[in-house]
Amino acid sequence: MFRVALFGAGRIGQVHARSVASHEEAELAWVCDPVLPAAQAVTDRYGGRPVADVDRVLEDGGVDAVIIASPTPTHVDLLTRSVRAGRPVLCEKPIDLDLARVDRCWTDIAEYRPWVMMGFNRRFDPTFRRIRGRVAGGDIGALRGLRITSRDPEPPPAEYLAASGGIFRDMTIHDFDMARYFLGEVTEVHAFTSEDDRPELIAAHDAHQAVVTLRGVDGALCTVTNSRTCVSGYDQRLEAFGDTGMLEAANQTPTSVRAHGAAVTGAAEPYLHFFLDRYRDAYVAEFDEFVRALREGREASPGFADGRAALVLAEAAVESAATGRTVPISSVPHTENATA
Amino acid sequence: MFRVALFGAGRIGQVHARSVASHEEAELAWVCDPVLPAAQAVTDRYGGRPVADVDRVLEDGGVDAVIIASPTPTHVDLLTRSVRAGRPVLCEKPIDLDLARVDRCWTDIAEYRPWVMMGFNRRFDPTFRRIRGRVAGGDIGALRGLRITSRDPEPPPAEYLAASGGIFRDMTIHDFDMARYFLGEVTEVHAFTSEDDRPELIAAHDAHQAVVTLRGVDGALCTVTNSRTCVSGYDQRLEAFGDTGMLEAANQTPTSVRAHGAAVTGAAEPYLHFFLDRYRDAYVAEFDEFVRALREGREASPGFADGRAALVLAEAAVESAATGRTVPISSVPHTENATA
Amino acid sequence: MFRVALFGAGRIGQVHARSVASHEEAELAWVCDPVLPAAQAVTDRYGGRPVADVDRVLEDGGVDAVIIASPTPTHVDLLTRSVRAGRPVLCEKPIDLDLARVDRCWTDIAEYRPWVMMGFNRRFDPTFRRIRGRVAGGDIGALRGLRITSRDPEPPPAEYLAASGGIFRDMTIHDFDMARYFLGEVTEVHAFTSEDDRPELIAAHDAHQAVVTLRGVDGALCTVTNSRTCVSGYDQRLEAFGDTGMLEAANQTPTSVRAHGAAVTGAAEPYLHFFLDRYRDAYVAEFDEFVRALREGREASPGFADGRAALVLAEAAVESAATGRTVPISSVPHTENATA
Amino acid sequence: MFRVALFGAGRIGQVHARSVASHEEAELAWVCDPVLPAAQAVTDRYGGRPVADVDRVLEDGGVDAVIIASPTPTHVDLLTRSVRAGRPVLCEKPIDLDLARVDRCWTDIAEYRPWVMMGFNRRFDPTFRRIRGRVAGGDIGALRGLRITSRDPEPPPAEYLAASGGIFRDMTIHDFDMARYFLGEVTEVHAFTSEDDRPELIAAHDAHQAVVTLRGVDGALCTVTNSRTCVSGYDQRLEAFGDTGMLEAANQTPTSVRAHGAAVTGAAEPYLHFFLDRYRDAYVAEFDEFVRALREGREASPGFADGRAALVLAEAAVESAATGRTVPISSVPHTENATA
Repeated sequence: MFRVALFGAGRIGQVHARSVASHEEAELAWVCDPVLPAAQAVTDRYGGRPVADVDRVLEDGGVDAVIIASPTPTHVDLLTRSVRAGRPVLCEKPIDLDLARVDRCWTDIAEYRPWVMMGFNRRFDPTFRRIRGRVAGGDIGALRGLRITSRDPEPPPAEYLAASGGIFRDMTIHDFDMARYFLGEVTEVHAFTSEDDRPELIAAHDAHQAVVTLRGVDGALCTVTNSRTCVSGYDQRLEAFGDTGMLEAANQTPTSVRAHGAAVTGAAEPYLHFFLDRYRDAYVAEFDEFVRALREGREASPGFADGRAALVLAEAAVESAATGRTVPISSVPHTENATA
Repeated sequence: MFRVALFGAGRIGQVHARSVASHEEAELAWVCDPVLPAAQAVTDRYGGRPVADVDRVLEDGGVDAVIIASPTPTHVDLLTRSVRAGRPVLCEKPIDLDLARVDRCWTDIAEYRPWVMMGFNRRFDPTFRRIRGRVAGGDIGALRGLRITSRDPEPPPAEYLAASGGIFRDMTIHDFDMARYFLGEVTEVHAFTSEDDRPELIAAHDAHQAVVTLRGVDGALCTVTNSRTCVSGYDQRLEAFGDTGMLEAANQTPTSVRAHGAAVTGAAEPYLHFFLDRYRDAYVAEFDEFVRALREGREASPGFADGRAALVLAEAAVESAATGRTVPISSVPHTENATA
Repeated sequence: MFRVALFGAGRIGQVHARSVASHEEAELAWVCDPVLPAAQAVTDRYGGRPVADVDRVLEDGGVDAVIIASPTPTHVDLLTRSVRAGRPVLCEKPIDLDLARVDRCWTDIAEYRPWVMMGFNRRFDPTFRRIRGRVAGGDIGALRGLRITSRDPEPPPAEYLAASGGIFRDMTIHDFDMARYFLGEVTEVHAFTSEDDRPELIAAHDAHQAVVTLRGVDGALCTVTNSRTCVSGYDQRLEAFGDTGMLEAANQTPTSVRAHGAAVTGAAEPYLHFFLDRYRDAYVAEFDEFVRALREGREASPGFADGRAALVLAEAAVESAATGRTVPISSVPHTENATA
Repeated sequence: MFRVALFGAGRIGQVHARSVASHEEAELAWVCDPVLPAAQAVTDRYGGRPVADVDRVLEDGGVDAVIIASPTPTHVDLLTRSVRAGRPVLCEKPIDLDLARVDRCWTDIAEYRPWVMMGFNRRFDPTFRRIRGRVAGGDIGALRGLRITSRDPEPPPAEYLAASGGIFRDMTIHDFDMARYFLGEVTEVHAFTSEDDRPELIAAHDAHQAVVTLRGVDGALCTVTNSRTCVSGYDQRLEAFGDTGMLEAANQTPTSVRAHGAAVTGAAEPYLHFFLDRYRDAYVAEFDEFVRALREGREASPGFADGRAALVLAEAAVESAATGRTVPISSVPHTENATA
């Protein structure tokens, strides 16, 4: 069995705990959280031992790999210590909100030839993955355009917003990675945001809506449309447009009921409500790929450099939204495990 | 120009008048209706001369063809006189509600080698026609099943119902023809009706719902589902199921708007309201085929025998609904212009 | 924990084993199969002890309930013995292919006030269940029509077909139960079958296509359309038509990809391939309901009488297909746990 | 009857000729084209007199209104002369490719209090119009985002491209008007273009793909996605996203056929091929509104200022694509008949 230590017993930590527990070849060894009862609650349900002390975990020679699902500010420290302890890592995005800190992290760990996979779960969604595979297989000819729609049903709580780094580093970061998954590297970024009238967003100095346009290295143009609210649920769509076709990821609903009445026909239900529903299978597939890539000796993908690259695009978007200028991405140095 | 005399200035007569007036190679010569002001209203809008006297029309040597769109009880008389006057005829369905009368009509006109096309407008609907063409072209392999859904938004007025001949002769007659359009001849018919609780239908001793099952000569099974009411509009669908695929005619809506809200997503508008909307293009194509078939010396299709065959199926359905037995269609004699 | 003994280690037995193993409050105690290595393979994966001897299982006082997922001819014996041993039972459909044997079974067990739930998994499908709930809640007014489409991707193997009891007892049985789930009792049945040209079906004297029409006790008309083949996958649809609306269960696909090219647009993938994919959630929900109904002291639903009633409709369909007559269902005696 | 003089007997002129001829209250008086046989071909089909001399038309006191559907470089001259002759005008877009010339035109005609309606046909499309009406009616709450997709099936011929003014002035101009139709005035514009590898577009120094982002006066963000090619037909979609819902204009197809096979399911046909098909009803409605607005003494909408405003946005897009900067639209002076 593949024995996994999990850092973080919150919402996303629980998602990973379930993936580990339901995997045929893996089991939880530790759940580590400074709030021990939170760790205990997870181990009660999914197995493993609860612990508050990080060193206790990293000293356990029986741990095959580490999942970092703790709050963002702890990522760099846990990642660095895990790598130094010789553990392969699956780290939730973002590595950090501060690009300089990310680069220092890499400097600190590079000598260990780290095996770090980033938790960009959407790359493992069966629908997006199928489209990526078909694009790569030439089904739509040269890729000319990409359209990513990503709207949350409701804004996160005020305290989360305050520490989130803003819409681009917190929410669009997934879409930046998705853009790179399809386009390869990005050469230019432009962004518009709209604050409008949601009081909690205004209080957090954060945007309600954002539109980001990116140019890919091969000329394809990509738009990302974000909103912190969407009454119909978690709006997660994608369109890849090419010379010989277009592939579209439609929204998904809890059932396939279609209602017909006097006012509307063919009406589906609201979209799957949020990421726990929409990306349930993606998290399972992500963990499975983590295990398999390690077992088969493959590189981590998406890797540390992918995590860094998404953050570079977020920085560029912040700058563009502030200045109105298109920001060139001239200098995203490739590190060893970039896999865009 | 192809000069057309129209019998009947009612709702369906006006549909034909517009088809004639908008056809580049045709024009209305006469509109004949015992209610002269009704005829006048049509000629005011679409051209031609109003008249109440049938003979006046049939004596006009400049009339190239006749359209019979008058009430059903007048069809046989007008058809017979028009044929004897040497005119090609486009006759609205049904020929008559009484099969014996239909057969006598044929006996009376057969010697004139009549050119009679039946107004089964749905055969000319672009969607159904496309499916028929693809089935004939082998797109779905051997045809194994056919499903026809046909629901009216509201029942007709009481006086119409009283003279309609019942749901099978009045409403299902179109579906019987559609079944023959796909299956060729039909060998067995079974029918269920449901009266339920619509007072105007109970008063007319007519059904609210009907389900008819037919077996085609090649073994394909067909179901027809009818309702006299449908809150979402005019429900007109068809599915042709075969060994290598299925072709479906979906309902149509006035616009392509899709609405997404808190309760429903992807909601379309109610279906096109009734046959004047849904089959607008079909009536135009039907008249165009009438002109072209005549000009090119082709046989009428659908012809008199198709009109008779649909009535035979209606009779069988009436019998089956009454007796509970499957009724064999053993003896539908082919007359010259059957084109199923 | 709720301890379950499973009879039958074949395909459907494995489905149940997984449901038990993944249920938070249940665990497998025994997997019983005359082919011990088959039982062993299941216990290796899902827990419990493998055994070939039925008595060994029924004598175990620690078994809370029994699931019968063995071949059909063994159902009556296992059900009878399990009930006599005082165990609640979840039994796969059908109880037996022979109605007389079913009735004798009931006679034999009635005194024990048996708690028997039938494995009509489709009642637990989230889509069908949602529609049933909305119909019951009045969303579409009086229910006037029901249309069930059920097509398998491929026929079963020849040896299965030979023992299957024919399409109505083997395949349509699910649809008969679904009809009863919506209509309540059925008063009349009519059936057409088509043999056509699939050699394995002809060899088994079985139908390729079937159309069954049923009349519900409140007058609603229901059609069931079956096929032993469907190139697009497992075609599982339903439409409930009422006075104020229509609810439709659309087919489901593995992803939400829609492809647009030069020839087709908006194209989805083939339907979920077969029942293991399509009804995965339904089996989980079915077992969960089994546990909950027992814990909460509710009656089994669907119960033994529902299993019997579906078989009565299958018998009627066999007779109708042979004679061409509509068969009245005059005398389906209600036993205690009918829950249509 | 409302008597109309038509300038221009080319493709778009013929569209207008048909709208006039089929309108119950209007008729063609003149078709004016320097190529007299072209004018003759139109009058042969739709009525009116052919003529090459513009003055001959403008001196005819019996002409109630003028439609300008001639090549773009002639618009200003014909518009100016028609206004001076006291005629209401329906003028095809764009007024001119040169904004300074447009402004001089206005200076020249303003004193005549001109009644000039611009031929932005898409405002009259039933689907877009329905969405606009529902947005205005509050169906989706505050409008936060607008997404316009507009892709032509194939690039125009080389000679057309050479004189077209580039993708923004030629093609996106319709989308700029649509953006203003929903957003009201626009305050900022950003544009990306992609040239890629279509030789005819490279030869014309024109873009293959373009993405334009606009900010509306109330903060709503709008993206326009254009392509000079689309294998699936004329891709014309729109999404209006608001606080309480989203309204979407889906593509339209020639029939409602949906095909299901071994590889794809629910597949529709390619989109309506090009603007003559897609906007057939829009042209009819546009002309009808022209007649009605005049008869009812309403202002022209969209008017001259709307034509100018769309051109201003095109200029801004050209500048943004060249400089990479977001271009503010600070100074679009409102003239009398702007109706955004």
